[in-house]
Parts: sequence; structure tokens; C-alpha cells
Amino acid sequence: MVGGVEIGNGAKVAVQSMTNTHTQDVDATVKQISELEELGCNIIRVAAPNSEAAACLGEIKKRINIPLVADIHFVHQLALDAIEQGVDKIRINPGNMQDKEMLKKIIVSAKNKGVAIRIGVNSGSIRDRNIDNNGEEEDLVELMVKSTLDYCEYFESLGFKDLVLSVKTSDVPSTIRAYRMIAGECEYPLHLGVTAAGPPALATVKSAIGIGSLLADGIGDTLRVSFTGLPHDEVRAGYEILETLGLSERKTAEIISCPTCGRCEIDLADIVDKVKKRLPQKGKNLQVAIMGCPVNGPGEAKESDIGMAGGKGFGLLFKKGKKVKKVDEKDMVDALIDEIENMS
Amino acid sequence: MVGGVEIGNGAKVAVQSMTNTHTQDVDATVKQISELEELGCNIIRVAAPNSEAAACLGEIKKRINIPLVADIHFVHQLALDAIEQGVDKIRINPGNMQDKEMLKKIIVSAKNKGVAIRIGVNSGSIRDRNIDNNGEEEDLVELMVKSTLDYCEYFESLGFKDLVLSVKTSDVPSTIRAYRMIAGECEYPLHLGVTAAGPPALATVKSAIGIGSLLADGIGDTLRVSFTGLPHDEVRAGYEILETLGLSERKTAEIISCPTCGRCEIDLADIVDKVKKRLPQKGKNLQVAIMGCPVNGPGEAKESDIGMAGGKGFGLLFKKGKKVKKVDEKDMVDALIDEIENMS
Repeated sequence: MVGGVEIGNGAKVAVQSMTNTHTQDVDATVKQISELEELGCNIIRVAAPNSEAAACLGEIKKRINIPLVADIHFVHQLALDAIEQGVDKIRINPGNMQDKEMLKKIIVSAKNKGVAIRIGVNSGSIRDRNIDNNGEEEDLVELMVKSTLDYCEYFESLGFKDLVLSVKTSDVPSTIRAYRMIAGECEYPLHLGVTAAGPPALATVKSAIGIGSLLADGIGDTLRVSFTGLPHDEVRAGYEILETLGLSERKTAEIISCPTCGRCEIDLADIVDKVKKRLPQKGKNLQVAIMGCPVNGPGEAKESDIGMAGGKGFGLLFKKGKKVKKVDEKDMVDALIDEIENMS
Repeated sequence: MVGGVEIGNGAKVAVQSMTNTHTQDVDATVKQISELEELGCNIIRVAAPNSEAAACLGEIKKRINIPLVADIHFVHQLALDAIEQGVDKIRINPGNMQDKEMLKKIIVSAKNKGVAIRIGVNSGSIRDRNIDNNGEEEDLVELMVKSTLDYCEYFESLGFKDLVLSVKTSDVPSTIRAYRMIAGECEYPLHLGVTAAGPPALATVKSAIGIGSLLADGIGDTLRVSFTGLPHDEVRAGYEILETLGLSERKTAEIISCPTCGRCEIDLADIVDKVKKRLPQKGKNLQVAIMGCPVNGPGEAKESDIGMAGGKGFGLLFKKGKKVKKVDEKDMVDALIDEIENMS
């Protein structure tokens, strides 16, 4: 449990993001968190890089409605401060907090306060790689996983088990391999992500493949898409991944639409765009197929709740697999929206 | 072999797209194909929905440099026409071409001319599902795979083996399941895609997860991203998926950049955007990490060929893991571009 949100144990996959305001600017930070909450962000993380930032965590926590996670690096005291301020979870990377005595203090303090801890090891924080007996550098993925499991053992030795683990890298195949490996080695809930994924267009592809392929195999309990951009887009992309895999309810109807080709005799991209913009709040469980031609059109249209298969300047409207009527191209958007309204 | 392009057998994964011009408009079709070729499209498909379109295939083929595939449905004669016109491959869905005698003619004719065939079964083209002994509708994925393998057997019985298979659905988990199943059942090269994936933003996520997770496991020999939009974007997205998985050389350096957070003291998104726009043609094998802060910054920067780890209004420049110099924020873009130019 992170505040009121369960991670793992079959709970729905929680979507996280991280503020990019200065944490000390409490108003700006709270405003951004409220916006993210509105978009469905389930858990929010803020950086606490110094004692001024850490001292604001209690005030931020008071003014928001979703669980608060403090991101701590290097300075053990900041973790103790954050726990004292009442955050719901802290994220640390023991790789940069190696003073065992101080780490022990953090673990004991978190345990007493019921604060969860994410052990977040990143490829970028593995500083030293040994040369093995064959003269080769140790495998980075194996090293990350081993290092994470070693930390777990230390936490367990102190009776602490409220752990979430992450083993992110900026390389997608390595990330997939790391999570598959650690999922096979322990039962702790896993926080998924591709780290430093870059600007939004590239980061979407990287995150969709990395996070999506793990979730498709049942690996992962919470996720954070990482964009060099606005955290709002991270939350939206997180939900797109979950919705694509059937792991989250859509907020509006799902549009299935074909790429168009030489067979298409209607302006499909325009129709899809208009329908998309007018999708009503209700009807989120519906699948709406908008297809350009009679090849896969009727088939897809039948598989969907509502379907339109385009002809030459007209479309055939399907409802639950049955042809309902022929509609002029200019009336197709209205007809589809009407049906969505009616069926929801 | 499809024209000069090998599919399967360890060849690099070929990126395909499909024109959305009217095939009969030869000038427009050839122009679009040339644009796609310029973007790296390896194989192009055009629809041949009627005999006028089919009659233009030879002329199109003459005027382009990449292999040409004709997409044929319903009308057997169009497949024979396309083969006669000298296309390199035809794509048929035997589900809508069930006249065995005519199908046999197509197979024999393709064999004589050395034309490859894709058996492209789509969820939308499976029309009838039986009710099994338990009163449940047959599983769509199993039905698609079984139907595809049945077709393969028929082709093989006529000595035809130049096959590529696809089992696309518009549902990502079903698509992943279908391809995993068929990959386990036969050795034919597989053409990957999520069909009718919808408008570009959603289609990117769907295709990245569907196609990407299969490729990550070594499944798939050619791909087509399907967007309700321009085919140009399909080719770009195809390459982004391949590059993310290390299956295609990048065209420019790869940018690794962090999402920024309360620790970031430079305008990272702006710097990344400027570097991205100025990336030189050379340096495609370089990884450039642009990180906002000292937490993972130096680590990521060291893992990359060129790295910049931001501080308060400055950055530390790394080269091949070694700190080179301190750079003012205003000079960071220039410094990074200079290094990319120097190292490539």
C-alpha cells in the first residue's frame, strides 16, 4: 500500500508521474499535481534534492489527494526528513546511499511510520563493473538485478518488506531483459519504466515497447512513462499503454480505423478525426470501427459494437454485427456519434 | 525474395507501407512511392481493387526502385492480372478467395513467374465462428492461425513455398498471441502488424507494443505500421520501432534524455529540442545523453559516447566515459553538436 493505492497483489496497474516544478515552490508543485490527478495520475513523485525541498513535503502532502513519493539521492538525512514529513513512499537508489548505518536508520524509520520504499536501480547509477574471469566486463543487466536483490536481502534482514523494485535502463531490450530476470527471482511488486527515454515521439515508442511488452506478459504492477517534456503527457501515454492491453478502462469509446489505401472512396482520416474530437464522455466501453472499404470493413464492423464500412461516397452502418442502414458520407460523423450516444 | 529484398532467413527486417493514392492515378502513386522510398521504405504495396487498377501495375513497377506488392481481394482474376503485370509479390486473403480452382491457377501462375505470395488473414475477414462443444464461440486467434496453416498446406500441396504469413488483428494482445502461436507452428517468414490501429497517436502505441514485443522476442521478418493517416508516418514509425530494438541502424545519433524533475536547473527540454533539430547526418552510431542533474547524469553520460550532465546553469561534458569540461548552459547545444561532428 502506498497511501490509499495498492501496488501489486492483482491490483490494477497504477500510473505514476513526477513533477518537474521546483519542489520548494509549493504552489506550483501542488497545482501541477492537481492537474495530473485530474488526468488520472494515481501516485505522484517529487524530487527532494535538498533540505528546503524536503521541508515542503508535509505541506504538499496536505494539499493533494493522491499518494506522495519523495525521490531521494545521495543524502541519507533527506530520506529521514521525508519520512518525518509524512510522505507515503520514498524512492531511493541504495547505489548512491551506501552508508549502511544511515540506510538502517531509514529502513527502521520507514517501518515505524508505515512508509513504503522503492529500490530504484538505474543503469546510469551502476558505477563500477568488474572484469570477469574471461576478461569481459560484467553484464550490466545481471549486475543491476543482482544489486537490487542484494539490497532486498538487507531490507528483509531488518524485517522490512514494503518494497517496490525497479531496474530501468535507457535501452529497451536491456530493460525488458532486466525486468523478466527480476520477475523470475522475486515476488516484490515491480515499477516499470524506460529511463531517460528522450523527447516525446521517441519516448512514446520506447516506453510502449518496453513497458507494454512486459505488461503483455503479466510483468509489472505500476508504471511511469518518462518524457523529456510535460508530465501530463507521461500520464496520457501511460493510460494509452494500459488501455491498449486491456488493463485499464478507456475514458471514451475506442476507435478502430484502417490506414486507407487505393480502395478507399471516402475521406476517412477526416471522418475519424471529427468523430474522435466529438466522442462523448459516455460510451467508454464501446468499440467503434470506421473502415474505408468493403474488404475488411464489414468484418471489423461486425466485430465491433458500432461499425461503418465505407463505399463510394457512402457508408454502411453496423450495430452489434448487423447492418442497420446506408449513410451518405456527409452524414457519417453524425450517424456514428448518434449511435455511440444511443448505445451507451 | 520479394524482388531484390530478402524476407526472413536472418535478413534485416524489411519496412513496408501501402500507398493511399488511387492506383489508377499512376503519377500520384509513383510520386508517393518515391517519397516513401526516400524515407527508407523497403517494399511497397498498392491496392488493385479493379481491372483498371491492376492494368497500371506494370507501368508503376517500371517507374519505381523498390519491390511492388499488389493487394488483392475477392476477385481471383485481379491476382492473375497482377502477376501478369510483373509485380514482385501479391497479398491475398484466401478467406475471401475461396474458389479452389481459381486459387490453384493463381498459385501455379505465381510459381511460374517467381512471384511471392503473402497469405494475409485478418481478424476482420474471419466471417464465421462455430460454437464448440462447450457452447462457446471458437477462439478467434486459434481460428485465424488454423485457417492460415490450412492455406499453407494447400499451397505446399501445389509445390508453392514462397510464402509470407500475417495474422493481424486490431486488438494488440490477440495480435501478439496469434503471431506467437503461428511462429511456434511453422517456419515461414512473418509479416507483422496491428490492423486498423487507428489515428496516429493511438496507432503508434498499439503498433509499438504489438510489433515491438514480437520483434523483441525474435518473431517477425517484415513489418507494416498501419496509421489512419499518411504512409510516410508509417515508415517513420516502423524505423523507430526497429531502431529502439537495435534492429536497424539509426540515421542520426540517438538522444538519451531524462524527464527532468525538481532537481533540474537547466532548460533541458529546450536544449534537447535544439540538439535534435541540429543533429548532423553523420554520427548515427553515437549515443548522446543529455541529463538534467547529477543523479543519474554522470552515470548515463558515462555509458554514452557523448554525455552532458546538467548542474545549476552549467553542464559537465563527458566523452567516452571521461569528463572533458564544464560548459555554460548557453553553450551546451553548440558543445554537443561540435562533439558529435568531431566523434563521427
